[in-house]
Amino acid sequence: MTKTIQTAMVGVTGYAGAELARLLLHHPHLKGKPPVFAGRVDAKDLEHGGISLTEVHPQLADNNGAAGLKLEPFSWELLSALGVEVLFLATPHEQSREWVPEALERGLRVIDLSGAWRLAEADHRAVYAFADDGTELAAATQAQAVYGMPELHRERIAGARLVANPGCYATSIILALKPLVAAGLIDLRHGIVADAKSGVSGAGKPPTPRTHYMYAADNLSLYSVFSHRHTGELLEQIGIGQCDIMFTPHLLPIPRGILSTIYVQFKKAQTRESVAGVYREFFAGSPMVRLYDKALPQIQYSVRTNYADIGFQLDAGGTRAVIVSCLDNLLKGAAGQAVQNLNLMLGRPESEGLA
Amino acid sequence: MTKTIQTAMVGVTGYAGAELARLLLHHPHLKGKPPVFAGRVDAKDLEHGGISLTEVHPQLADNNGAAGLKLEPFSWELLSALGVEVLFLATPHEQSREWVPEALERGLRVIDLSGAWRLAEADHRAVYAFADDGTELAAATQAQAVYGMPELHRERIAGARLVANPGCYATSIILALKPLVAAGLIDLRHGIVADAKSGVSGAGKPPTPRTHYMYAADNLSLYSVFSHRHTGELLEQIGIGQCDIMFTPHLLPIPRGILSTIYVQFKKAQTRESVAGVYREFFAGSPMVRLYDKALPQIQYSVRTNYADIGFQLDAGGTRAVIVSCLDNLLKGAAGQAVQNLNLMLGRPESEGLA
Amino acid sequence: MTKTIQTAMVGVTGYAGAELARLLLHHPHLKGKPPVFAGRVDAKDLEHGGISLTEVHPQLADNNGAAGLKLEPFSWELLSALGVEVLFLATPHEQSREWVPEALERGLRVIDLSGAWRLAEADHRAVYAFADDGTELAAATQAQAVYGMPELHRERIAGARLVANPGCYATSIILALKPLVAAGLIDLRHGIVADAKSGVSGAGKPPTPRTHYMYAADNLSLYSVFSHRHTGELLEQIGIGQCDIMFTPHLLPIPRGILSTIYVQFKKAQTRESVAGVYREFFAGSPMVRLYDKALPQIQYSVRTNYADIGFQLDAGGTRAVIVSCLDNLLKGAAGQAVQNLNLMLGRPESEGLA
Amino acid sequence: MTKTIQTAMVGVTGYAGAELARLLLHHPHLKGKPPVFAGRVDAKDLEHGGISLTEVHPQLADNNGAAGLKLEPFSWELLSALGVEVLFLATPHEQSREWVPEALERGLRVIDLSGAWRLAEADHRAVYAFADDGTELAAATQAQAVYGMPELHRERIAGARLVANPGCYATSIILALKPLVAAGLIDLRHGIVADAKSGVSGAGKPPTPRTHYMYAADNLSLYSVFSHRHTGELLEQIGIGQCDIMFTPHLLPIPRGILSTIYVQFKKAQTRESVAGVYREFFAGSPMVRLYDKALPQIQYSVRTNYADIGFQLDAGGTRAVIVSCLDNLLKGAAGQAVQNLNLMLGRPESEGLA
Repeated sequence: MTKTIQTAMVGVTGYAGAELARLLLHHPHLKGKPPVFAGRVDAKDLEHGGISLTEVHPQLADNNGAAGLKLEPFSWELLSALGVEVLFLATPHEQSREWVPEALERGLRVIDLSGAWRLAEADHRAVYAFADDGTELAAATQAQAVYGMPELHRERIAGARLVANPGCYATSIILALKPLVAAGLIDLRHGIVADAKSGVSGAGKPPTPRTHYMYAADNLSLYSVFSHRHTGELLEQIGIGQCDIMFTPHLLPIPRGILSTIYVQFKKAQTRESVAGVYREFFAGSPMVRLYDKALPQIQYSVRTNYADIGFQLDAGGTRAVIVSCLDNLLKGAAGQAVQNLNLMLGRPESEGLA
Repeated sequence: MTKTIQTAMVGVTGYAGAELARLLLHHPHLKGKPPVFAGRVDAKDLEHGGISLTEVHPQLADNNGAAGLKLEPFSWELLSALGVEVLFLATPHEQSREWVPEALERGLRVIDLSGAWRLAEADHRAVYAFADDGTELAAATQAQAVYGMPELHRERIAGARLVANPGCYATSIILALKPLVAAGLIDLRHGIVADAKSGVSGAGKPPTPRTHYMYAADNLSLYSVFSHRHTGELLEQIGIGQCDIMFTPHLLPIPRGILSTIYVQFKKAQTRESVAGVYREFFAGSPMVRLYDKALPQIQYSVRTNYADIGFQLDAGGTRAVIVSCLDNLLKGAAGQAVQNLNLMLGRPESEGLA
Repeated sequence: MTKTIQTAMVGVTGYAGAELARLLLHHPHLKGKPPVFAGRVDAKDLEHGGISLTEVHPQLADNNGAAGLKLEPFSWELLSALGVEVLFLATPHEQSREWVPEALERGLRVIDLSGAWRLAEADHRAVYAFADDGTELAAATQAQAVYGMPELHRERIAGARLVANPGCYATSIILALKPLVAAGLIDLRHGIVADAKSGVSGAGKPPTPRTHYMYAADNLSLYSVFSHRHTGELLEQIGIGQCDIMFTPHLLPIPRGILSTIYVQFKKAQTRESVAGVYREFFAGSPMVRLYDKALPQIQYSVRTNYADIGFQLDAGGTRAVIVSCLDNLLKGAAGQAVQNLNLMLGRPESEGLA
Repeated sequence: MTKTIQTAMVGVTGYAGAELARLLLHHPHLKGKPPVFAGRVDAKDLEHGGISLTEVHPQLADNNGAAGLKLEPFSWELLSALGVEVLFLATPHEQSREWVPEALERGLRVIDLSGAWRLAEADHRAVYAFADDGTELAAATQAQAVYGMPELHRERIAGARLVANPGCYATSIILALKPLVAAGLIDLRHGIVADAKSGVSGAGKPPTPRTHYMYAADNLSLYSVFSHRHTGELLEQIGIGQCDIMFTPHLLPIPRGILSTIYVQFKKAQTRESVAGVYREFFAGSPMVRLYDKALPQIQYSVRTNYADIGFQLDAGGTRAVIVSCLDNLLKGAAGQAVQNLNLMLGRPESEGLA
């Protein structure tokens, strides 16, 4: 019997934070309950003795003793006193930029769910405008970061001290395209189109005009056209350039789930079997990707699971394809993938605690 | 050919305001375009030259020249210069308390959509805690107010200088109960139950945790149990006491519409026909109430109309009934009823501009 | 280590069937995979070699080897050959009436999710019009049936050979009212109102005009007023008469979840604590009921759990109360409660496999 | 004052039929009430004395005397007796193929909402597999058909005896692409992508597994990939080939509305103004197209209007664009466009009765 370990998480008040808390509370290999830190709750709430996790997320009430957990004011000393080994950050990227170097310094391994450390190229980081970009410490930290997509970087994640957990849209699109690009099937001269649609939880918990029920319901809208922050990630990970893809996010009137419809043209005609074979080979040993044989994935099939579902259809000539990639933006697109990375870092089965 | 008149409205940025603007722009008896005033838009927005109505409400773009309308800073002088005769206020009740006395003083007729002037009894007004309650001016103004429900006060509205436009829930429940209570059918000793459900537009346009899509969608919740502000209105207008009714609002995962399910017990057994007769007689000459013969009203039938739909079903013994009352909270529950009142004040057909 | 046992289920193609299959596949005390039987799939589908469970319910694809399960044509011989001890029926009530006597005869223990055996009184059964009502075999079978609500009949369920699993609405209303009626708090002369609202999965999987998206979405409607089939159950289990309650179901535009708003008047004034105490005492030892202290239950908190959530609010005088009862119609209202009953029948912890 | 004319419509029971009935009842230039014919209602319903229009569509109850209209059994004699001049067919395409030749023969002008007569090329018609394709009568009828998109064929529609009203998806995509293709801006070698999303009313009124609330809600799915029936229309009208475009429909969890996201690459770099200029010129004199300057169209802005909303965004280099095209599938995508065509045929203002 291997020993269990102690984790902690910062930023529990958002939607991804709630899912992560739930997963950590149930994970069979983790020790007791993780201390949880607000990250966004007003300081005044925390002054008054701390609120409980289930006050913030009533739906967690039945989860393995969640009722007893209080939101703690963040403290490096508490982490140290509890012997925390792995720290999850579900914090805004500015906060992750600030804290991660110190966490590493203190010997913690970090899984960061923000966009703070995902991008190797300065050009791509420009969209985040990090105040510290260019400092030596930032460069040294970035150098240690491993992009936390197990299907691409399984071995490096296992040994990583800092895992940059991928964005939800990026996960959906990278998993669909990387195998085909790596195999050299796609004719990039014609450009790829990734038309992506996400449920409202992707827009975050703070109430805004865009997350108002009256705006989101019975509607569909585009946003961040040619400018979404996940663009850099998917370019770097797929290994293509800015001009090779048009990626457009849409806001769907559903609570959660992403469906990306991806259009590609092949260098030469393919068959259903030749394409399926490329996917099968690439995802051999990847328990959290489901390849669809006949039907196409739908949001309803992957939502509330940690699976990425991938299917495709060729045109009659075999030279063009529509690829469909579905996942739950809060699980495989955030908290679930973070736990998948945790499992790799601990040498556990990749899908442990994710069924 | 009767002359047309000039109106104006304050508080155009909310959902009821948008509906009212649309109705006024299309009303055949009104002169040109009404000047519209923000009421809630930040002062800084207005400083910058004024924003257009269609920037705030893009769905109004096709409405009869709405594109040309700018949101004006409020000004008594402008009202006067334009010869405005009727002023609509879709403002918070505090603002209506402040402005209505001056408007009346200046000779304007006012239709106020807030709860400021609906309540005759001080006990019922307590829920609003008006700073000026108790002043002579407030009392004198209140004395002029007519509760703007045409089906109850048609004649008085016609001559009114101040119409207090009813609340949405109150309209739904009063129309269902007043005829039966007035006819002496209901045994009040057993208590009436009014279980009311409203779409999210009833919660207003400012983004809040409760109007977040993630809260409202796939959910149902109660609020203001035993304490909703519309309670006083319905007691006064139906003519019953606090103990005679339990009224509970619910937040429905739909954009608009109210359905109230009302439970009553009769003093003696009724037949379908005896109850239907009471309703028919009461609503004779009321073009905006539809009585249902066989099926029961549903939200989908009254939404986007100015109709109040009423139906009912008796139990086998005829001593108990379930009454169903549906309307669109933004139309018959707000802007539509306001225009119905305007029509009465101008001696126009009651449903003009409301088809 | 206690031995695991073999179960089987008939009627897997509906929504409750899918949930039951999922729960059985994951239950730690059950042997391997249960054989599953269609119950409603067209005979011609089954002729063609049998379809797989995951073709009918793709969302089950990741569940513990569900992929390998085929829908079998029903066969007593197969049940016998596999050593099935407990048989779940998620079949129409007519089919349950026909099969249960034979199942008992063959020594199987049965948990029937239909309304076939829930009702002790012939008057209440009239709504189902069973062809065999009145036969000796039916009477003898009915005499063995235990109403499968653990919170009321825990001991009898443990030893039962036939458990009649409760209806979803009935569960919601009985749990809210039974403690107060049993404690003699409620003044029945004034009548109870149970205004209940259910998501669309409660209307079943076959496409009908009422389950069409265009009918259910953006709408709210009543159905089965004064005539819903669950009325008999709740009268018998609460121990009240037809005239003591008005129960009205509504169709909510959400996939799943029930919220019942229940209105009662007390014989004498109560306090929050006196009522809470009655509930706490009644539900002591009931792990699947959550009592709410401050806030009221909402559908979003109980959906996708097996909990029944109960909360209430008194009026200022303490003589009237609004009680709110929420549950997931497919879990605590159907498949989850069935597994809760299974656990009792096997002497297992009541909430096993339901977390 | 020009004389008013008499119309009639067949196929009133569907969603587009209801909208068409509503528009015809309110149209200021039409005579009295149009006779309406079921088209799909069971013969047995009609036997029993005829059902009323408002029984089939209760939401039409307030529309200008709709209450008095009965669904008639179809009869050429009745059309003749009433002096019907224009016949609308909202019937299945097979029925339109059968009836249109006779209608023309009898001197009626026809606006057919089905796909029966939209396609000039036999290859494109293959998807419908008309039994009569290849007959002389069919060829002669087809030769008279004008594709009913006023923005493309205004003059020919004015004189047409048979107008083939466009498909909803096709309208959305043609209006977005035709101006740019006609102006020679688009580099077709790279292929166009049209990722289109439609509300559930597009799937028709008969209940099916796909229109079940439980399937459509909280979901997104693709259908008819590389094979949707509207493909032929958009190829013929835009003037491109099968290989020049990938068009994929999605089923949105909303009642109505289409949003098409269209990706193009230009032959040479464009500016916002150069593209906007092409659109402005093309749509000069087209009152039912709204061009967006800054923001992009959203479904909520065009739904329940007859407008087609078009906006676009260029990438930084000006060589690629995302075009967004929104409309209401039942109005500009069906019944509204049909009335627009009627107006042209009668020499009336194109937007009459459509505000």
